[in-house]
Order: sequence, then structure tokens, then C-alpha cells
Amino acid sequence: MRGIFITIEGPDGSGKTTALQQVVPRLQQEMNRKVVATREPGGSPIAEKIRSLILDPSHTDMDSRTEALLYAASRRQHLIEKVLPVLESGDVIFCDRFVDSSIAYQGYARGIGEEGIREINQFATEGLEPDVTLYIDVPAEVGIQRIHANLDEREYNRLDQEKLAFHEKVRAGYQQLAKANPERIVVVDGTMSREAVAEACYHIIKNRYPSYF
Amino acid sequence: MRGIFITIEGPDGSGKTTALQQVVPRLQQEMNRKVVATREPGGSPIAEKIRSLILDPSHTDMDSRTEALLYAASRRQHLIEKVLPVLESGDVIFCDRFVDSSIAYQGYARGIGEEGIREINQFATEGLEPDVTLYIDVPAEVGIQRIHANLDEREYNRLDQEKLAFHEKVRAGYQQLAKANPERIVVVDGTMSREAVAEACYHIIKNRYPSYF
Repeated sequence: MRGIFITIEGPDGSGKTTALQQVVPRLQQEMNRKVVATREPGGSPIAEKIRSLILDPSHTDMDSRTEALLYAASRRQHLIEKVLPVLESGDVIFCDRFVDSSIAYQGYARGIGEEGIREINQFATEGLEPDVTLYIDVPAEVGIQRIHANLDEREYNRLDQEKLAFHEKVRAGYQQLAKANPERIVVVDGTMSREAVAEACYHIIKNRYPSYF
Repeated sequence: MRGIFITIEGPDGSGKTTALQQVVPRLQQEMNRKVVATREPGGSPIAEKIRSLILDPSHTDMDSRTEALLYAASRRQHLIEKVLPVLESGDVIFCDRFVDSSIAYQGYARGIGEEGIREINQFATEGLEPDVTLYIDVPAEVGIQRIHANLDEREYNRLDQEKLAFHEKVRAGYQQLAKANPERIVVVDGTMSREAVAEACYHIIKNRYPSYF
């Protein structure tokens, strides 16, 4: 017996985490299996040490491939310690970001390329894929405006154009992934209200796994 | 102009490091380019932090694939900071262990498989291979006896048989690699005297790159 592996993906400012916070308690109440929410490095002490190495602001000279390998290492350890035990118990795990994030951010937006990122993550996951991925899609401008909700228009215009270009590349990466994996990745329109986004996410899960409700 | 990338490989107890200590000063004196000796993580602060994470004895629950990804990350950073600048100056870098070690130890002996280890290291090195690799070949028993030189025979017999089996797998891995890469990997008989091993290593380099002497 194997549980359900759900991931939620989207650029910063997509409302992904807000959606997750609304959907998970509802699933926990309504589903007939345990529902566990997690995000990498998620309480795996080794994975957390790896992540703090990546995020150490003194490491300005960290190469982008070093970083990608460290993310894959942290993902592997989190998978072994946190994700697999839930799946092996037949329960439901809901993970905020997974391999798709690395492909969109590092593969596409940072320019390392999809193939290499996919290969090192294939090694990390031994091919384990989410059963369903909720991808919250928003235009780059909307994502950036939400992140900087308090900026007035003048300040917003001063924002580095590079940031917009970067967010656009992230989105293009996600859209490619969604196109290539239509069975697994379900696109949710992130420009809807918070409630509508959460409602959409809930119904995607319920329609796909009715016997778990 | 690109320099020469030399690696030295072999199981523990092969006499690899002793050979390197004898050969490098001689090359430094006789070659007409700078000769730099290094070993991973080799003075790259980020690579050293990654390595200390791997070697932390409290991490008994580190998965072997997490470990392999961390080694690849440390290798990447050392390559960028230490190896490439020497090669780009047209000089000679002599590195104690490189990708072949990961394939022999983690791919073969730890049983992860050659292909996956090769892929993540391909990502880490972007395909950069040593120009020549000196592989010091010794039977597993000889390597283990040298590591435990102070043990008497009774103590030696108590040594875990697993250790012998592990060393034999490492050697089998190296031998496969040597067979598959006859142009790059030169096998040196590590049962010879220290002086003879060092002499052999020296002549392999001199014969291959006469214009550098």
C-alpha cells in the first residue's frame, strides 16, 4: 500500500503557501488517511544543515552547480526521512515545492538547463514523482507586486528589471513543465481570489482521489 | 592555452599519497610550468564546509545518495576555485583523487551503481576529465595490511571480513575503470617499493609530456 504524494508549485508571490495553509486543514478533516504537510528541508536535521550552508550570506562565491547539488542532497535526505515514511504508511503527504522548483528556478531561470537539473534530481529521488502537482500560475508582474505589496508605483518602477525577467523565466519554466506533464501537473489560475485558489486546489484532490474522502 | 590535469587514484593503503609526495617536488623542479598539488576539498572554504558535513560523526543517518551528492558539490566548488584557474594559466595540477574515487567507492563498493555516480559528477565537472590518471593498484590484503601496519597476525585475522570484501570491490571498480579508459588511466603496480612506484609515476608523466620538461 502506497499513499498519495501531492506537491504545490509556483513562483514567489503566487499565493502557493497561502493556498496550502487553507487546503491542508480541510483535507486533514475530510480525508480518511493522515495528511502531513511538509516543505524541504522540513525538520530533517541533516537536510537543514545542508540548506543553511546554501543560504549562508557569506557564501557569495558559491557556484550555481554547487548550489544545485546541495539542493538535491537536501531533497534526498528530506525524502528519506520525511516523505517516504508517510507514503509507506499509505498516508498523504503534501509538499511545498519539489523537483519542479529546481527545474524552473535553476534549470530555466538560472540557465543551468533542464536536463542536468533533472538528472541530479533523478539520482536524488530514484525517480519518485509526485502523484499530482498543483501549479499556481501568475504573471510575473502580479507575483512581484504581491511580494512588494507595500511599494507605491514609483518604488515599484525602480525595481530591477532583471527581477521581472527572472520571474518571467521561472514562469516559462513552469509552463513548459505543465505542458510536458499534463497528467501530473494541474494548472490553477493564481490571479483568482485566495478563496477561489484554495477551493480549486481542494476540488482537484477530491476529484482525483474520491475514495480517500 | 590549457594546462595538464593529472590525478592519482587507488584504494587506501595503495601508497598513493606517498608516491605523490615524492613525485610532485621532482616535477616542480624539472617541469617548465608551475606544478600545483591539491586534494579535495583543498582550501576551498565552501568545499571544506560541505566535507565537514559529510564527515560529522553525528550524522549516522546520512543516506548514501545524500553523501554522494555532497561529494559532488564539494568537488564542483574545488574544481571552480582551485583546479580550473591552474589549467587556465596553462600550468599543471596534480590532484589526489577525483571522479574515479567516487565511482570506485560509492558506485561499486557501496553499491549505488556506476551510472548514477557518473551522471551527478558529469553535472559537477561539466565533463572535464583528467588528462592522465595514475592508478596505483594493490591487492586488497596488501592495502589493509599497510593501513594496519602495526597489527600482529592474530589481530589482523580478527579484522572484519567485510572490510576485505569492501576493499576488493573498490579494487574491482578501479580495474573496470582502467579497462574502460586505457588511454587516460595508467596502471602502476603498487606492490613495488615506494621508490619504484614514485619512479614509475614520474616516467609516465615525462614520457607523455616531454615538451614540458
